Amino acid sequence: MGSLLLKNARLLDMVGENSDIKERDILVENNRIIKVEETIDVQADKVIDCNKNLVMPGLINTHNHLAMSIFRGYKDDKSLMDWLNNAIWPVEDKFIEEDFYWNSYESCLELLKSGTTTCNDMYFGMKNVVNAIEDSGIRAVVSWCITDNSINTKPEETIKYAEKYNHDKNARVRVYASAHAPYTCNPETVKLVVDLAKKAETGIHVHLSETLDEEKQIKERYGKTPTEYLNDLGVFEVPVILAHGIHFSDSDIEILKNIKGGISHNPISNCKLASGICDVTKLHKQGIKVGLGTDGTGSTTTLDLFEEMKTAAFLQKQKYMDAEAIKAYDILKMATIEGAEVLGLQDEIGTIEVGKKADIIIIDTSDLRFTPENDIATTLVYAANGSDVVTTIVDGKVLMENRNFLFSDESEIKEHVMQNANRLL
Amino acid sequence: MGSLLLKNARLLDMVGENSDIKERDILVENNRIIKVEETIDVQADKVIDCNKNLVMPGLINTHNHLAMSIFRGYKDDKSLMDWLNNAIWPVEDKFIEEDFYWNSYESCLELLKSGTTTCNDMYFGMKNVVNAIEDSGIRAVVSWCITDNSINTKPEETIKYAEKYNHDKNARVRVYASAHAPYTCNPETVKLVVDLAKKAETGIHVHLSETLDEEKQIKERYGKTPTEYLNDLGVFEVPVILAHGIHFSDSDIEILKNIKGGISHNPISNCKLASGICDVTKLHKQGIKVGLGTDGTGSTTTLDLFEEMKTAAFLQKQKYMDAEAIKAYDILKMATIEGAEVLGLQDEIGTIEVGKKADIIIIDTSDLRFTPENDIATTLVYAANGSDVVTTIVDGKVLMENRNFLFSDESEIKEHVMQNANRLL
Repeated sequence: MGSLLLKNARLLDMVGENSDIKERDILVENNRIIKVEETIDVQADKVIDCNKNLVMPGLINTHNHLAMSIFRGYKDDKSLMDWLNNAIWPVEDKFIEEDFYWNSYESCLELLKSGTTTCNDMYFGMKNVVNAIEDSGIRAVVSWCITDNSINTKPEETIKYAEKYNHDKNARVRVYASAHAPYTCNPETVKLVVDLAKKAETGIHVHLSETLDEEKQIKERYGKTPTEYLNDLGVFEVPVILAHGIHFSDSDIEILKNIKGGISHNPISNCKLASGICDVTKLHKQGIKVGLGTDGTGSTTTLDLFEEMKTAAFLQKQKYMDAEAIKAYDILKMATIEGAEVLGLQDEIGTIEVGKKADIIIIDTSDLRFTPENDIATTLVYAANGSDVVTTIVDGKVLMENRNFLFSDESEIKEHVMQNANRLL
Repeated sequence: MGSLLLKNARLLDMVGENSDIKERDILVENNRIIKVEETIDVQADKVIDCNKNLVMPGLINTHNHLAMSIFRGYKDDKSLMDWLNNAIWPVEDKFIEEDFYWNSYESCLELLKSGTTTCNDMYFGMKNVVNAIEDSGIRAVVSWCITDNSINTKPEETIKYAEKYNHDKNARVRVYASAHAPYTCNPETVKLVVDLAKKAETGIHVHLSETLDEEKQIKERYGKTPTEYLNDLGVFEVPVILAHGIHFSDSDIEILKNIKGGISHNPISNCKLASGICDVTKLHKQGIKVGLGTDGTGSTTTLDLFEEMKTAAFLQKQKYMDAEAIKAYDILKMATIEGAEVLGLQDEIGTIEVGKKADIIIIDTSDLRFTPENDIATTLVYAANGSDVVTTIVDGKVLMENRNFLFSDESEIKEHVMQNANRLL
């Protein structure tokens, strides 16, 4: 890939605890950042003049179902169980291989176009999802979702892909094991996934404590909370990514204080499905890492992590009736370095520092909406959206420049998704 | 102004109770819509090919403080009283005439650029605010904010401007009287504003029940709720626009059932300042009209009504833990025809129908984020944002086309606002 030089960046590196902007040049060699200095004058294979636009680490989306893009706005404004049983699951059963590929490819482009450089996918039909991830150029953690009924999901796939990717330091893909959720996985299934994770030397991605219904069901079946249920089956012996994490008891939080990994907070999905509000403030006080996620397009309608940042801030302030409950810079961390920690990738991504992988976005801050710029953190969280991202770099490769994809044909992909939607919906 | 023909619109006219899209041409003569038909073939002074983009009524923002644009992100993440006392009021005292004009002009452009064609402003220094409104081309209701301390706000100004504008059916400006809020207006001040409104034959724009602090203060001072306080002083004898409306008691709602006008719900401001959640669901059940507003840039950071739509939906669903608490189409109505009703302008704007003023926006729905389009109402509310608006027409005049302002110099206005911010902050 060679070298890439970013000139005249107004850099928000997301290192440390303040949002000071530094005027910097950034040099990338192959997939890593090798120099961040006031002025770098070298010959590089590609030079981008950032023209005083804002440069920051690519955003990290800690919970996705990429292949669900066809469900955008489909049978919307319904509660989770009604929506899953009557809108989503009957259609998912009819997915063919192409659906997984093209739907996921569209989601990857939507993520990249709105500034997300890493996602964390859990679904089935993952072979084609991984192909779409590879072809789009996005960075991803992927997991083959296992439920009591998922006869098509062979644990061997997780092993095979983990062997292919997880030992290659330069791979863009990381493989996790996945149990869908406590309410869809009986103890044998959960144990199978724990064994699988241990065998593959990886972590587990699981939905946890999304709704009060789930809590009720698990308590009735097993006499314990969903967190206790997973804990007793050994899930927390490996690193975990716990999606949603809304209805934790105090004793659940005692258990979670010791996990490796963290929670994926999906504020918009939780609002749209009326699931409740993740207590980010309390989790943070206990030192538990919380990243942001969009969930699938079906439940959020769009995959714009800037919108999740706003909503995450709004919900904490409303939950605590306290305008200082969470600060804009803390929200930016959740979308970058803290999200990286949830995925166990904090040594690779999440900040702009020498030695890290070059996952970088450039944001055009010239619009009226950013004038005046009294505080860049609050402006990014409350005024910016994905449409302000002009350039997206993943693993040192410029995937989108001035909002045009350099290696993907956006129109072709849209066309395929429209065909898939017409056939299935 | 002559005639304007919009060809090949996918029209969401906001008439009635469903979001069916109609393929239509629209003919405007001077400032009014005179024809909406499947095909219109006439010579017009200007023709816009909508190219199957979505066409809908311009959005209506029912509560603004336009001159506050310099406070974008300034001393953010604070509660209302702390923020007003320590960040905003000391700076506002130093405003000079130019600040009012240029800051307001920026807000008008920000509104137009994100699809809002009507705003409702309450502030001081209104002479220059009105000049900015006139020069920008936006439609507005304006009010000279009166408090116990507002020695600079002469009631005669309200009378003078009301006489100028309120009897002219083709004026873009309407004048209301305004008392700032129960906690800043003693009974004499409120009575003065009621008399003023009656004398000017107009309504009253007032902040009401924004915080629990306000409720406590008014109960301590007067032994009644803020709504009872205003009611007892005759405020509801004229049409009203009640900004925020969060902490109403059941007996308050009994009073409000009979008002002319309605509530301006400002979801983002209420989140950022942690004021609480307006009970839109309950107000709607009682037949009380609720529009959407952004409040000033200081408390929302941006003036994008699409963001307010999303947040309004999220808050009702979370408040009631019910995904069906409010539907996307109801939210679109709040941002259009119901907002018009709150402002008393429902016969003039809020839908696209023959005879109405031509306040129209064109939204580019070609992006990935809109594919597939399973339901236009949910897609607009949950996936669109102000940056998707390409063309904005107010009063029959194309003010922005393909995101370029035809009559305003965006760069010059930004430059002035930056200078004002540098001087004041």
